[in-house]
Amino acid sequence: MAKDKKLVEAITSMDSDFAQWYTDVVKKAELIDYTSVKGCMVIKPAGYAIWENIQKELDARFKATGVENVYLPMFIPESLLQKEKDHVEGFAPEVAWVTHGGLEPLQERMCVRPTSETLFCDFYAKEVQSYRDLPKVYNQWCSVVRWEKTTRPFLRSREFLWQEGHTAHATAEEAEARTIQMLNVYADFCEEVLAIPVIKGQKTDKEKFAGAEATYTIESLMHDGKALQSGTSHNFGDGFAKAFEIQYTDRDNQLQYVHQTSWGMTTRMIGAIIMVHGDDSGLVLPPRIAPVQVMVIPIAQHKEGVLDKAYAIRDELLAAGFQVKVDDSDKSPGWKFSEQEMKGIPVRIEIGPKDIEAGQAVIVRRDNREKTIVSLGELSQKLAEVLNAMQSEMLERARAHRDAHTYDVTAYEEFVKTLEEKPGFVRAMWCGDQACEDKIKEDTTATSRCMPFEQEKLSDTCICCGKPAKAMVYWGKAY
Amino acid sequence: MAKDKKLVEAITSMDSDFAQWYTDVVKKAELIDYTSVKGCMVIKPAGYAIWENIQKELDARFKATGVENVYLPMFIPESLLQKEKDHVEGFAPEVAWVTHGGLEPLQERMCVRPTSETLFCDFYAKEVQSYRDLPKVYNQWCSVVRWEKTTRPFLRSREFLWQEGHTAHATAEEAEARTIQMLNVYADFCEEVLAIPVIKGQKTDKEKFAGAEATYTIESLMHDGKALQSGTSHNFGDGFAKAFEIQYTDRDNQLQYVHQTSWGMTTRMIGAIIMVHGDDSGLVLPPRIAPVQVMVIPIAQHKEGVLDKAYAIRDELLAAGFQVKVDDSDKSPGWKFSEQEMKGIPVRIEIGPKDIEAGQAVIVRRDNREKTIVSLGELSQKLAEVLNAMQSEMLERARAHRDAHTYDVTAYEEFVKTLEEKPGFVRAMWCGDQACEDKIKEDTTATSRCMPFEQEKLSDTCICCGKPAKAMVYWGKAY
Repeated sequence: MAKDKKLVEAITSMDSDFAQWYTDVVKKAELIDYTSVKGCMVIKPAGYAIWENIQKELDARFKATGVENVYLPMFIPESLLQKEKDHVEGFAPEVAWVTHGGLEPLQERMCVRPTSETLFCDFYAKEVQSYRDLPKVYNQWCSVVRWEKTTRPFLRSREFLWQEGHTAHATAEEAEARTIQMLNVYADFCEEVLAIPVIKGQKTDKEKFAGAEATYTIESLMHDGKALQSGTSHNFGDGFAKAFEIQYTDRDNQLQYVHQTSWGMTTRMIGAIIMVHGDDSGLVLPPRIAPVQVMVIPIAQHKEGVLDKAYAIRDELLAAGFQVKVDDSDKSPGWKFSEQEMKGIPVRIEIGPKDIEAGQAVIVRRDNREKTIVSLGELSQKLAEVLNAMQSEMLERARAHRDAHTYDVTAYEEFVKTLEEKPGFVRAMWCGDQACEDKIKEDTTATSRCMPFEQEKLSDTCICCGKPAKAMVYWGKAY
Repeated sequence: MAKDKKLVEAITSMDSDFAQWYTDVVKKAELIDYTSVKGCMVIKPAGYAIWENIQKELDARFKATGVENVYLPMFIPESLLQKEKDHVEGFAPEVAWVTHGGLEPLQERMCVRPTSETLFCDFYAKEVQSYRDLPKVYNQWCSVVRWEKTTRPFLRSREFLWQEGHTAHATAEEAEARTIQMLNVYADFCEEVLAIPVIKGQKTDKEKFAGAEATYTIESLMHDGKALQSGTSHNFGDGFAKAFEIQYTDRDNQLQYVHQTSWGMTTRMIGAIIMVHGDDSGLVLPPRIAPVQVMVIPIAQHKEGVLDKAYAIRDELLAAGFQVKVDDSDKSPGWKFSEQEMKGIPVRIEIGPKDIEAGQAVIVRRDNREKTIVSLGELSQKLAEVLNAMQSEMLERARAHRDAHTYDVTAYEEFVKTLEEKPGFVRAMWCGDQACEDKIKEDTTATSRCMPFEQEKLSDTCICCGKPAKAMVYWGKAY
């Protein structure tokens, strides 16, 4: 029982050391394990099952907008990576280089893809000839590599899993519409499925993707008040098309460049779920993303009929479409409760001899520990109600937390002080000049998270330099 | 319309040049495209959708046997790869080596995984301590790299997609049972879903996996009489466990080594589907794996009501659970038929003004061009019958083809002549000595495909050396 003991030992409390709390949760909820490759991790079954659910949900939403899946090679020849100037400058310092195939040195070294714009461009240059070949709306699910110096499970690792969509369009308008459409898919997914509220907006030039004309982002706020970039969608205009000569003949038989987009979401969203919803007992999974939604825990399971009843409840709920397991191990109910809580399973159903006699069971919510006694005849209906309530209350709680940690400021001294003392988003006006972003970063370590689509005018002047303001910006310290 | 013209130009006939026919089909059915990375390919939407269906079917079958999915890193440090002697000898000559991370040389070079036994062993060595931690029955879906000299789309490429299952068990018996169980999953999947009959058997020591105690395989026969290894399942015994020190304490508190297995199936099965079922008009997809099962093709679609009826049929069939599309492009019906045939869509439904008047439609099977006129009221029921019949007849046709190209021989001269003149499997007895396998390979280029589980005694002596025979072997030239 050594492992159980470790499990229910208290983890570090989030208020005393949030970083350690996070590490404890990813380990003790059995989401990941470290490996002998520094900065790379094993995603264990409980972690990977969350990713499978993310994939299933996102993939269906993508396909509903006409996306088709493909698979491109993981290797990019150096000459291909170098074709777009900004892009190679952004990525070359952090790629892994393959120099030998078998016993032979390669004629040209290749990097393991950090992202696949260059490969898709090379592909589209061959595939696209006529306006009839457009649009191309392709996506791939794969792993990518970025040789980061500092790494953290899910949030920043040298290899991570993601999807990357890459599209090519006849017009600038269509490319822009697709960029925004996919940002909205991400935002809806985060709010509806992960119960994570997001701010939609545009990145400043300093923070945009290497090679993009415009980068849009959804930004979320973690429990500790740090921001997390949760999904990005890029409009490349015709910059890559010109570098890679991706041209088509239009209806008037004129050669035109295509307009391109790309957009991605990664396994870091598992980190976001942990840091938005988790508590001092461990992980808390929103019902809509939880691989196991219900753990049935028999009380006094040695007594006749208890285990049978637990299995009958499981079978009834499975048939009703819930994801259910029974914990019939030889541990005590107390251990089982702790394990279910550590793993973030949204509800447990307690069923013991007295419950059976009374024709009832107890549903306990993971997020607020609320108990509901329900008659067995109504179990499946009440369970649906409890899970739905939990899903929407988790979103509202996260939104309330974010709003309570979002501060509007109009004076620089207050701005710096707020960023120092009050973890959260700070909203302030900005002149549009990168020098101010640089100064703010130096003074506070905070960065511009986005210029939100929903703009407000907090004052007329830039928080930093006092020149006329061009946009309201969300500022924050970020993962 | 340049692209359509290329499409319906006759492809190379399979009898005149099977290799060129294969290349034509993968290109013209839009399954793959070549890339600037030699030996790596783009899997296009029509090809990737087949892989998605393979994944969905196999993954469900795996999970029904208790398999859990995980994800391990793509990089293997050189020292880890070298821990098991046979394994490193088998794979080191064909791996891609990463030597630099960003601008810095790595302290230890790493290969891109050609397979992940060593990573799983490293992981299990930490994860497994007690008999309570066993069995581990993990699988991952990923891409792997083998730096092959000669490559062919799907069949042999430097990067390919696959799943690799890796399990650890308390006893040798349990490991052997899991090895056979997964081979049976593969065999059932091939026959029931891909309509590809397989021979189940064991590889000889010469042909087994590097580091395995026993390798089991399913072997299928392509239309040109060449064999294709279609899935393998390996029993490692405790060899890797000893090299990686994967030990557990049993119920009597004694330290024991685990017993391990691994098993994999790859994107080469898309190549198998092409080469088993395809014909001179292109690809033929079994209904159970086809991403699009039905193409509704309107005849005289400019006439009033025709397109509306085509859409109504599509909607009805979608609601009944079929995968259906309408070809409402401005091409002629003849072009559309050719495209549907090239892409291997199992049936087309032709619907024109006369059909609508008569309250009927025409179902045409892709494999044998059989036409069935059905009343619109019975369409969905008849379609199910046609697809079911097609699925089982495709399997039976492939089985008949294989059986007609399987030869039993008992004399060496006849053996060599048969392998030279009659493409197919040759069944002959073998003494168990690798020298005979080596001689046979030199004389014929054929290899032992497997020692089938269903043994027959064709004679008492080895086909090659005349010594007492130990097993009947399937021999053949292989992809």
